[in-house]
Amino acid sequence: MVKASILGATGYTGQELARMLLMHSQVELIGMGSNTYAGKKYSSVYPHFESALDLKCSNMQDDALFEKADVIFLALPHGLSVPYAEKALALGKKVVDLGADFRLKSADIYQKWYKTEAARPKLLGKAVYGLPELYRDEIKGTDLVANPGCYPTTAILGLAPLLKNGLIDKKSIVIDSKSGVSGAGRSLKVGSLYSEANEDFQAYGFPCHRHAPEIEQELGNLAGEEIAVTFVPHLVPMTRGMLSTIYASLVKETDTRRLEDLYREFYQDEVFVRVLPGGRQPHTKWVLGTNNCDLGVNVDERTGRVTVVSVIDNLVKGASGQAIQNMNIMCGYKEEQGLNRVALYP
Amino acid sequence: MVKASILGATGYTGQELARMLLMHSQVELIGMGSNTYAGKKYSSVYPHFESALDLKCSNMQDDALFEKADVIFLALPHGLSVPYAEKALALGKKVVDLGADFRLKSADIYQKWYKTEAARPKLLGKAVYGLPELYRDEIKGTDLVANPGCYPTTAILGLAPLLKNGLIDKKSIVIDSKSGVSGAGRSLKVGSLYSEANEDFQAYGFPCHRHAPEIEQELGNLAGEEIAVTFVPHLVPMTRGMLSTIYASLVKETDTRRLEDLYREFYQDEVFVRVLPGGRQPHTKWVLGTNNCDLGVNVDERTGRVTVVSVIDNLVKGASGQAIQNMNIMCGYKEEQGLNRVALYP
Amino acid sequence: MVKASILGATGYTGQELARMLLMHSQVELIGMGSNTYAGKKYSSVYPHFESALDLKCSNMQDDALFEKADVIFLALPHGLSVPYAEKALALGKKVVDLGADFRLKSADIYQKWYKTEAARPKLLGKAVYGLPELYRDEIKGTDLVANPGCYPTTAILGLAPLLKNGLIDKKSIVIDSKSGVSGAGRSLKVGSLYSEANEDFQAYGFPCHRHAPEIEQELGNLAGEEIAVTFVPHLVPMTRGMLSTIYASLVKETDTRRLEDLYREFYQDEVFVRVLPGGRQPHTKWVLGTNNCDLGVNVDERTGRVTVVSVIDNLVKGASGQAIQNMNIMCGYKEEQGLNRVALYP
Amino acid sequence: MVKASILGATGYTGQELARMLLMHSQVELIGMGSNTYAGKKYSSVYPHFESALDLKCSNMQDDALFEKADVIFLALPHGLSVPYAEKALALGKKVVDLGADFRLKSADIYQKWYKTEAARPKLLGKAVYGLPELYRDEIKGTDLVANPGCYPTTAILGLAPLLKNGLIDKKSIVIDSKSGVSGAGRSLKVGSLYSEANEDFQAYGFPCHRHAPEIEQELGNLAGEEIAVTFVPHLVPMTRGMLSTIYASLVKETDTRRLEDLYREFYQDEVFVRVLPGGRQPHTKWVLGTNNCDLGVNVDERTGRVTVVSVIDNLVKGASGQAIQNMNIMCGYKEEQGLNRVALYP
Repeated sequence: MVKASILGATGYTGQELARMLLMHSQVELIGMGSNTYAGKKYSSVYPHFESALDLKCSNMQDDALFEKADVIFLALPHGLSVPYAEKALALGKKVVDLGADFRLKSADIYQKWYKTEAARPKLLGKAVYGLPELYRDEIKGTDLVANPGCYPTTAILGLAPLLKNGLIDKKSIVIDSKSGVSGAGRSLKVGSLYSEANEDFQAYGFPCHRHAPEIEQELGNLAGEEIAVTFVPHLVPMTRGMLSTIYASLVKETDTRRLEDLYREFYQDEVFVRVLPGGRQPHTKWVLGTNNCDLGVNVDERTGRVTVVSVIDNLVKGASGQAIQNMNIMCGYKEEQGLNRVALYP
Repeated sequence: MVKASILGATGYTGQELARMLLMHSQVELIGMGSNTYAGKKYSSVYPHFESALDLKCSNMQDDALFEKADVIFLALPHGLSVPYAEKALALGKKVVDLGADFRLKSADIYQKWYKTEAARPKLLGKAVYGLPELYRDEIKGTDLVANPGCYPTTAILGLAPLLKNGLIDKKSIVIDSKSGVSGAGRSLKVGSLYSEANEDFQAYGFPCHRHAPEIEQELGNLAGEEIAVTFVPHLVPMTRGMLSTIYASLVKETDTRRLEDLYREFYQDEVFVRVLPGGRQPHTKWVLGTNNCDLGVNVDERTGRVTVVSVIDNLVKGASGQAIQNMNIMCGYKEEQGLNRVALYP
Repeated sequence: MVKASILGATGYTGQELARMLLMHSQVELIGMGSNTYAGKKYSSVYPHFESALDLKCSNMQDDALFEKADVIFLALPHGLSVPYAEKALALGKKVVDLGADFRLKSADIYQKWYKTEAARPKLLGKAVYGLPELYRDEIKGTDLVANPGCYPTTAILGLAPLLKNGLIDKKSIVIDSKSGVSGAGRSLKVGSLYSEANEDFQAYGFPCHRHAPEIEQELGNLAGEEIAVTFVPHLVPMTRGMLSTIYASLVKETDTRRLEDLYREFYQDEVFVRVLPGGRQPHTKWVLGTNNCDLGVNVDERTGRVTVVSVIDNLVKGASGQAIQNMNIMCGYKEEQGLNRVALYP
Repeated sequence: MVKASILGATGYTGQELARMLLMHSQVELIGMGSNTYAGKKYSSVYPHFESALDLKCSNMQDDALFEKADVIFLALPHGLSVPYAEKALALGKKVVDLGADFRLKSADIYQKWYKTEAARPKLLGKAVYGLPELYRDEIKGTDLVANPGCYPTTAILGLAPLLKNGLIDKKSIVIDSKSGVSGAGRSLKVGSLYSEANEDFQAYGFPCHRHAPEIEQELGNLAGEEIAVTFVPHLVPMTRGMLSTIYASLVKETDTRRLEDLYREFYQDEVFVRVLPGGRQPHTKWVLGTNNCDLGVNVDERTGRVTVVSVIDNLVKGASGQAIQNMNIMCGYKEEQGLNRVALYP
């Protein structure tokens, strides 16, 4: 049994963490850090927690958030995590950071894309990129996990079997991603209003979204050389869900059936990655509320290109669920403990 | 630990039952009855069950569905449940019927509204109306529960404190209900198409919806005399959720604060009924995926009317969740076992 | 041919006015007043006007907005219209105010509900309540029209035939209204975010919404005595559309067929009011983008109550379309000039 | 003034044609062909036409549909248009076919993809591919127009300036398209149900959608050589709207600004194609109900790829609006006659 605090508890990923940790039989949620709502009952900010969670929000400087917890989740905007992570680590606590501050190994690249100073090399060096399917052993041995971004999770899991097996032209990768609106968070922007986002579809983030360098870092690791991708995110009129359609040119001859087998084998021990049988293509709705990543793979023989469709719930495998998966690994629990396996449907 | 079968497993309430039973630590799901899909893997009908449920659909005549199970859930269109219930009861099994066939105590009223023959009086007499907040003790002692309809659940829980306390004019009740589209089920109708139901709002079921006699039977029991209500259901462009706005004329002077206290006291021991504090009015989204019924109560002093807003997830407290709550009571488990308490949000 | 200005041009009703005036063959749109966006191209605020409207926004103090126009539309938050209306009237211009400032004949009631000072009695006395179906002749003869609220439009058109014919108990009226989210406007509120409003349904405006006194004023006029109603608005997860379900107790015996005939006769000369044939009930989608008000009427013989369903597009017949209908009457054009008759469907 | 008939009048494109033709000042709609609903009032099939259109549906064999009309629109499933087109042409009428039967110049390719026999070469040779931006002069001189598919319209307009100017590697084209659900029509399929399509996003049409050969035919014409593309369509949870994100590798150095200028120049005389200024990227909502195609172009200098975002309303520029644009050209009317220029917003 571990005790957990959440800093940035009133954003969407923070409240999703709270919901899931309440369902986790090995976790007691003891602190909810929020400077905006400090002193208020959490269930007055999110009334759906009424009768289920009886904590007040605390100022994030509050020592109790750190001292009484075994695990501290940081669900903060980028650029804010470093001091909280340092404080927690100094106390010997485990930290899972859901933001971007420890994901990029290169301080220069971080500064270029995020326009703010990176963490010191020592801290950066300590952080493990928290994609369990690729870094499970490193996650076991660390106190600081950089939880991956939602877009990178779909892209990396979708491309890993191809890159590891040298099947594609590394210059040919195009990642066309689509996200539900909850990915934009709870901040007030005209574009996030119901009447604006409803019944609308758009591409955004031109010329390049901040998740591009994170994707490239990890694809580069898989390929053993630098990789540049074209990555275009889009906004879908739905609350949750993310789907990436990934295109690449094949350098070896293959077909859909063989590639499906390759993917199944690659992920055979992974409880959260599914390659759907019978040529079925994944739907975002089939993973709603779950920590699953569903994959579909197709060869377009006319053009020699492979298409991979990679699907997650952006707030679960793309954020809070993966954070709990990481915590489970760090704490020695079963990896699927407390994580839903069947989507809320329809 | 009990074993459970579902007959009518491929409708929306059937699959929601399956999802929840998989999360229930005291239940093993052993049979999925579906004549349409007999012989097919359940996860080929609903691919989101892939890797979580490895059962095939069976013909509903299949004896194993009955013999190997301790509890049998019937999630069938009205008019079909009687023979299955009889077969299960004869084998000494417990039955929860999610359809309408055992809800109405009067065979005449059943036949008038459903245009099909009612069950024999002996069977009807055995059935307990499965609203635990009103009939908990009777549910404990029976093998046949008639799980309430979704609209009646909102209406009865919303009006019970007023009727029990004789606070309203019994001729003045108007129930204006709104349901998400999943209430219409998975059958193919033009009106259920996305392009038709999306961005649309309508009233339906004129002059009278079949849930009216069920509501009137139970309100009559609460009031100790016959009651006729005006009940108008509406279709909301959302998948899940149900909200009823209930109007009645007060016969005693009171105010919002006193009524709120009355409701809190009335439901103080109920784990699934919440009267939100601070004058907050319920939202359907705050109960999504949960077995909660949220209530808001207001006195309009200008007109002497009380307004009650009553909210559930139509597929959970309005169907499958309530069925499991009933099973928990029948089997001696904790009433909230396996039932979510915090909504999937946003 | 008339020239028109819009003050408050960048709200949703302002932009809907602009769209419709561009389609109106007898109107030239010459001024777009917006203090927030003064100096900016209108098509930079709303890019869908690109290549269709080449005006810049002007400060609302700009004299040209008044002097060069024949008709001035005020699409402002309540409490702001009076000085602009006075300025325009002093110049001999026609004014249609889409806000609340001239709707209530009683300055006391206005101040009580809107917490701001009412217009001087002289100006209030000049204003005609712009519901053409009831006040066509007065609208013809005035320079100042108070365009009705969206909820009142549905309620008054729905109840007028019953009240005029003395068919209902005036104390028994309950109005349960449902509105699309665009009714909340473009201002930034958490509750208007896509992720909050989507897949949600709620009642709001307790204990009483500001449209209640407006409804009561007009129903009182129709009935010839004071009327108090219970009015509860709800928010529907769709962008446009409004439906009111109205309940009242009948004081004379009648049936659905006879009431339908009565409604058809009452509105037989009205181009924008439809009583659907064959017992069909109105859908909001059937009026999308049109200036129609669709009505359905039903008698519940079991309870002696009548149910009226009244449907509009909240931004058209509930705001900008009705404003143009009023302008057409004031300027001597055909009443339906420039107003769509067939919904955008599906 | 011309008289028009619609065959297949009760599908979504048929009813959208009807709506638009009613707004067209130079057209009288005289016949609605529908075998399913023959003899029924059109407004009983689509009640939103009540009081606006007083025609009954006719059997499509009915000679009056052909003889009394000047223009005949065919809005039929593929494989059915040939005999109706022949009959109309024999009578000297003009025909716009909204289906696929005359789009592909190669009978072999048609048969391979559509699994049904193609029209005779003589008829095929007569048909002009009705994309006015490319084939305006040919459309003027023909009696038989093959109205383009919705996906091809976005792809061809998006790529034409690049291909005509030899700027891209012709083997590098990837077209990732997203369509609203109305594209699936009004037929009854589980996947088109509200509860299935709502809050879902999926890719479909693997390995290759039927619009691929149509796209390739036209891109080949533009490039002067055969072209094969990777084309993946997706389903968006919204009713109307289509967006294609198109990727290609540049073979000449350029930048976003220069490409934008090139696009503006290429389409400078086109009333329905907009390249949004100031780097704005198109939204589907900005073209709702209009015949516009909005384009955004971006160079990703890191990868040497160009991204084009191309947006239409799938039922207007993607079907019925373009059909009317073609009719306007064939009949000598102004090209934008009867076609909306400003989107219904929000």
